[in-house]
Amino acid sequence: MTPEEFRTAAHEIVDWIADRRIHIEQLPVRPNLEPGDVIASFPASLPESPAAAADVFQDFKVLIAPATTEVQHPMHFGWFPSNASLASILGDFASSGLGSLGISWESSPALTEVEEVVVDWMRQLTGLSDQWKGVIQDTASTACLVAMLAARERATEHSQTTGGLVGFERRLCVYTTNEAHSSVRKAALLAGYGADDIRLVDVDPWTRDMLPHHLEKLIAADVVAGSIPAIVVASVGSTGATAFDPVDRIVEIAGPRKTWVHVDAAMAGAAMVLPEERHRFEGIEGADSISWNPHKWFGTILDCSLLYLRDPDHLVRVMSTNPSFLRSTAGGDATQYRDWGIPLGRRFRALKLLFQLRIDGIENIQRRLRRDLENARWLATQFNALPNWKVVAPVRLQTVCVRHWPVGPDGSRIDDPEQVDRHTREWVRRINISGEAFLSPAQLDGAWIARISVGVEATERHHLEHLIALIRRAAEDRGAAA
Amino acid sequence: MTPEEFRTAAHEIVDWIADRRIHIEQLPVRPNLEPGDVIASFPASLPESPAAAADVFQDFKVLIAPATTEVQHPMHFGWFPSNASLASILGDFASSGLGSLGISWESSPALTEVEEVVVDWMRQLTGLSDQWKGVIQDTASTACLVAMLAARERATEHSQTTGGLVGFERRLCVYTTNEAHSSVRKAALLAGYGADDIRLVDVDPWTRDMLPHHLEKLIAADVVAGSIPAIVVASVGSTGATAFDPVDRIVEIAGPRKTWVHVDAAMAGAAMVLPEERHRFEGIEGADSISWNPHKWFGTILDCSLLYLRDPDHLVRVMSTNPSFLRSTAGGDATQYRDWGIPLGRRFRALKLLFQLRIDGIENIQRRLRRDLENARWLATQFNALPNWKVVAPVRLQTVCVRHWPVGPDGSRIDDPEQVDRHTREWVRRINISGEAFLSPAQLDGAWIARISVGVEATERHHLEHLIALIRRAAEDRGAAA
Repeated sequence: MTPEEFRTAAHEIVDWIADRRIHIEQLPVRPNLEPGDVIASFPASLPESPAAAADVFQDFKVLIAPATTEVQHPMHFGWFPSNASLASILGDFASSGLGSLGISWESSPALTEVEEVVVDWMRQLTGLSDQWKGVIQDTASTACLVAMLAARERATEHSQTTGGLVGFERRLCVYTTNEAHSSVRKAALLAGYGADDIRLVDVDPWTRDMLPHHLEKLIAADVVAGSIPAIVVASVGSTGATAFDPVDRIVEIAGPRKTWVHVDAAMAGAAMVLPEERHRFEGIEGADSISWNPHKWFGTILDCSLLYLRDPDHLVRVMSTNPSFLRSTAGGDATQYRDWGIPLGRRFRALKLLFQLRIDGIENIQRRLRRDLENARWLATQFNALPNWKVVAPVRLQTVCVRHWPVGPDGSRIDDPEQVDRHTREWVRRINISGEAFLSPAQLDGAWIARISVGVEATERHHLEHLIALIRRAAEDRGAAA
Repeated sequence: MTPEEFRTAAHEIVDWIADRRIHIEQLPVRPNLEPGDVIASFPASLPESPAAAADVFQDFKVLIAPATTEVQHPMHFGWFPSNASLASILGDFASSGLGSLGISWESSPALTEVEEVVVDWMRQLTGLSDQWKGVIQDTASTACLVAMLAARERATEHSQTTGGLVGFERRLCVYTTNEAHSSVRKAALLAGYGADDIRLVDVDPWTRDMLPHHLEKLIAADVVAGSIPAIVVASVGSTGATAFDPVDRIVEIAGPRKTWVHVDAAMAGAAMVLPEERHRFEGIEGADSISWNPHKWFGTILDCSLLYLRDPDHLVRVMSTNPSFLRSTAGGDATQYRDWGIPLGRRFRALKLLFQLRIDGIENIQRRLRRDLENARWLATQFNALPNWKVVAPVRLQTVCVRHWPVGPDGSRIDDPEQVDRHTREWVRRINISGEAFLSPAQLDGAWIARISVGVEATERHHLEHLIALIRRAAEDRGAAA
């Protein structure tokens, strides 16, 4: 493809993106597809002749773009927000256009150093002290694995340099709660900890926050048994019910044992840019690592997950490689981000954060986050005021968990858990397949609820009003019919 | 940022990208910077007021773009090619513009299924049988870690589900050679294997290919000692001297022991699209996993690394999570790529490969790769014909490793290894800081050489002629002065 062909085609894509954002509300939130439908629309093999860019773009518009759940849609309330602010997309374009290679400081000094700059700006904007050094990872899942590995090597005094985990004699224990994201358990297992050594600490029955006295008890028992308490993962703003494990207490308990404390604030970390919300993160300065995703609520296009470390030198020792072909002519002062994570090569991801921060400005981002907090609280009030509806978890940030109890033919409320579960899944399904809105069904204490995750950039109050009407129609009109 | 502001700014970036590609030869290949120079050009904190997009873009052009080693430059011969074909950039734009979220089939059916389509097209184009199922990973480093984890769990019969690696009784051995990429050792250590259990198999002194009889001997000794031979990583087209470990023989040796065979063809995998080069990959069908990076020579913009597996169900068992909030309403037939690797969330990376394949067409890509092979062979012939120059490793694909022996004041050749090393590093350094060309110094058998990695999309024969002139001037004019 020549630069002139690229120019023509890329201008077309730009206009399509801008137009689509303008008209996004006219699209369904979710396509009605079965697995295999998209595959069936493509030939089984690459067509032999090259195609004109315009034809490929046409296929993209017709076959691909409509086959995606539109997470930028104001009526999207599923999972967590996955905002892609236009300013961050612009930064992503700059990154793609530059085509840089991040494998060492030397391969792109700007790629490394702009990341250092922007990650430090974000540190300041979230109120973290300058003891923290950060890096961009793809996701909080990977960041959690990195923390698990760092903790493992600290607990085993770098067993990797000798006999590895197999050669290590004592059990290594991981502490978290049942509210932790599934990626926490996955990260522990991948890092070589055993399922038998993952301790699920009890939680408060209403807030679902970790109960520190139970953590203390579990750790003490493991120590008596000769095991090493290797790592506590504190969920700070959990995926289900926005639990906030008490980091201050966790740090007090873990610190004296040299147990690594990883704060998984994947979603909620964005709230740290609001000074009035920072009380929820108390004690975070005593942790060993913190990760959160600007690519969620904050609005940086995926993938952009921040990982901050108190002792990056330890991580570098766990991760470092220094083959001759990567040695730089630069002095030893250059940061080599390849030693701060798993992959060697990295994209220039700092640009999307840089463009977003500078063009949107932090005050506008803060204003949007505050709007969403306000909207979520308002939404919760609305549901709590409705008969047979209940908000079933505290609304700490922007997620509202609701349940509706259907009413039987005699007008009495049906309480049978299985029937309520069936009812819940059914009304959520009906909304989701309608394409008018999207929300995630989820389980809380074993029972199904609807999670309404507020926070898409385009979502305003009137969208929530519309959502309430849709939800009531879907849930109440059928009553006990489900 | 409003859609209209985005439109204006993005059109500007598009023109800048097209113009830059047209005029790329006028740029220096490498900036002359010291660590900290880029950081110093940014304020220590985010400026309080938002900036106009045009101002941010201006800073990008002035402060950032010039501070990157220009790997798309035709005089770039460092590391490996990291081509970013314009068609693939277009696909990346489409991906950024769509702003999809890949956390489950349901979150974007197209994101999952286009990946399935394109990865299967690539399978066919590289001559692999339909026993292979593939997935896109960020890099070959990560793909290697995934293979290490899969092998670990196969060897330990899923120790993660019980006591983890610590609870496992037998040592787990990893086999590779000293020519393997640094990421192989890193992946082994991160996966929990110990440094003591990494076996470096002997290599042929000229080709640097793994010697299978030595592999056989090492495995047999480990088995006698009660250890489990868990995984062999075959470097197929190594980073240093393009060694091709004999996969057919390795598979014969490893197969009966159920030792996992991972083929790391990060760079060389691209050559599989040339039927006449496939003989180098003989035996690959007997491996357990294969990874290679379209984001290198093939030309898909970073990051795009293919990982093919013979038994994806095994990998899914190692990696899977199925929390309630990610359960899909779709049946069990949908591919959930989150269970094929480490991160939960993924970008729509298949688009860059799709756009490249369809717009550039495989024949044009093949023609370019053949041009590079021809150019590398020609370059080697030129150096071998020059006095005091030698090509010091076989030129299997597109990398040419050369050494020059300086001449003393009396006209006699200097053979002292330390002096030759110093001389080599010095003349390579002088070329690299000139900005006229870039190549990587590297060590081969402990001695420094210059690696000339041919294969940037824009590199034609006349660039190589110019390179030879630059190299001769830098190395020969100074003679023994170094």
